[in-house]
Amino acid sequence: VAIQTLTIVGVGLIGGSIGLAAKQRGLAKRVLGVGRRQASLQEALHRGAIDEVFVDSLEAVRQADVAVICTPVDLIADQVLAAAPHCKPGALLTDAGSTKAALVRTLDGRMPAGVSFVGSHPLAGSEKRGPEHADANLFDGKLTVITPTAQTNGDVLDRVTAFWRALGSEVLVMDAEEHDRSLALTSHVPHLVAAALATLLTPELIPLTSTGFRDTTRVAAGDPALWTGIFLQNRQAMLAGLDRLGANLDRFRQALESSDRATLDRLLAQSKSLRDAINDSSLSVRHQALNDKSLERRA
Amino acid sequence: VAIQTLTIVGVGLIGGSIGLAAKQRGLAKRVLGVGRRQASLQEALHRGAIDEVFVDSLEAVRQADVAVICTPVDLIADQVLAAAPHCKPGALLTDAGSTKAALVRTLDGRMPAGVSFVGSHPLAGSEKRGPEHADANLFDGKLTVITPTAQTNGDVLDRVTAFWRALGSEVLVMDAEEHDRSLALTSHVPHLVAAALATLLTPELIPLTSTGFRDTTRVAAGDPALWTGIFLQNRQAMLAGLDRLGANLDRFRQALESSDRATLDRLLAQSKSLRDAINDSSLSVRHQALNDKSLERRA
Repeated sequence: VAIQTLTIVGVGLIGGSIGLAAKQRGLAKRVLGVGRRQASLQEALHRGAIDEVFVDSLEAVRQADVAVICTPVDLIADQVLAAAPHCKPGALLTDAGSTKAALVRTLDGRMPAGVSFVGSHPLAGSEKRGPEHADANLFDGKLTVITPTAQTNGDVLDRVTAFWRALGSEVLVMDAEEHDRSLALTSHVPHLVAAALATLLTPELIPLTSTGFRDTTRVAAGDPALWTGIFLQNRQAMLAGLDRLGANLDRFRQALESSDRATLDRLLAQSKSLRDAINDSSLSVRHQALNDKSLERRA
Repeated sequence: VAIQTLTIVGVGLIGGSIGLAAKQRGLAKRVLGVGRRQASLQEALHRGAIDEVFVDSLEAVRQADVAVICTPVDLIADQVLAAAPHCKPGALLTDAGSTKAALVRTLDGRMPAGVSFVGSHPLAGSEKRGPEHADANLFDGKLTVITPTAQTNGDVLDRVTAFWRALGSEVLVMDAEEHDRSLALTSHVPHLVAAALATLLTPELIPLTSTGFRDTTRVAAGDPALWTGIFLQNRQAMLAGLDRLGANLDRFRQALESSDRATLDRLLAQSKSLRDAINDSSLSVRHQALNDKSLERRA
């Protein structure tokens, strides 16, 4: 057992999964859970994701050796700033938010002596919510991006890396701004587009949806408040991503308008080869590439 | 056995699945397969999707009681026009194309006496191709849209309805133009958008894609030539759908530009409720509604 007391603030799908994975892998002796909704806390307790329920966040964080903040991204910075002065010396704070730059910028250089914060983003989850969907294997073979700054101590970076690896995740170290620019393209803009596509639906069209529509819009069933927070934190990179998407859509539109078969064929073939590249790059190859890149950056 | 000789022109994923389902359900005594690629024909034969291989399409269609044309949508009309004069009296021709209006318009009133064509679109399939992915249960619980015209004889409509039901599908009768306008929104525009999203990828971004990106862009792995044909056949309805999508995207963009939390929240909540409606409407309820609607139209 590497961690005496692990505190999870926000025991939803991600927080609950961290608790389950930490317990089942023997990573933490005690897991304390903090949340606003009693029903979620009781469900997390019942499922064995946490050992003790705390309503007072500061009290739970005060006891933590490691604390993971799993609340909506726009709340994390304030919660870390409120909690940090109460932490034990040597305490490590991290999070599971989908955007990193604003958070890391806000917190950089503001931790009390002996207390550390490093941003984390586990690329795992689903459109489902709540500890009832928590899964001890949620992070298995997935990737967690860690975004240290120039201020981050090497030992602290090693601890947060070891933490996510112990939960089953691969780890990639990235600059927070680069993370946000990248995730705008691989997650946040696609989410916005899926939401915009879903609004094309009317009740009469529902029977005429097939697996294509369902997959393309699946993420639009995600929690609106959570995603509003993500969108607001990463709006600049998303606006740039929307510009690029708009240019791509325009190319298709022009080819459609002029019934230009050759261009449509070429555009679709290009998209197919990019999409196929995701399937073709097996997990092990991708992770090898990541580790090489990650080591390079840290060297 | 209701059909003595069933001919399938184009034994890919859909054609192969029709053959497998027809054989396994005892719907057809002989299944003849026609195709351009010998490898596909041999694979379909090997898997039991067809009983006999024909390279001469006219010869195979000449023997058919029912023939299903499963080639790319922009080839179907010419193939039906070429085959029809060779058909036996009483022969029923149908297809499995994703667009219907241009096809039905082209063929209406042009069948020889005793030969019938009715358009069909089974809403089933995947981004995969070829008879190696054929599945005898592909149509199980799925929907097939049938698009008769004012010229379509009631007995012929009953036969084509019975054919798809015997393969496991539910059936909805619709006007061809309405089908195309609807499918532009539920399938063709989403496909174009998935393809445009896939082009945001660069090799470095691949490890940062998660299930969200993969699902949102899955259909972009589909066959470019097949989808170019669909796009060209349904370009007017797609352009109208792209306009509606563009207006939705603009609403999101304006809210992002002005950091308008309330609007983002409202737009995302609206998308979620529309997307949730797909899951909430269970198959049986949806199909009941469809059957009621279908009966209503035919009354």
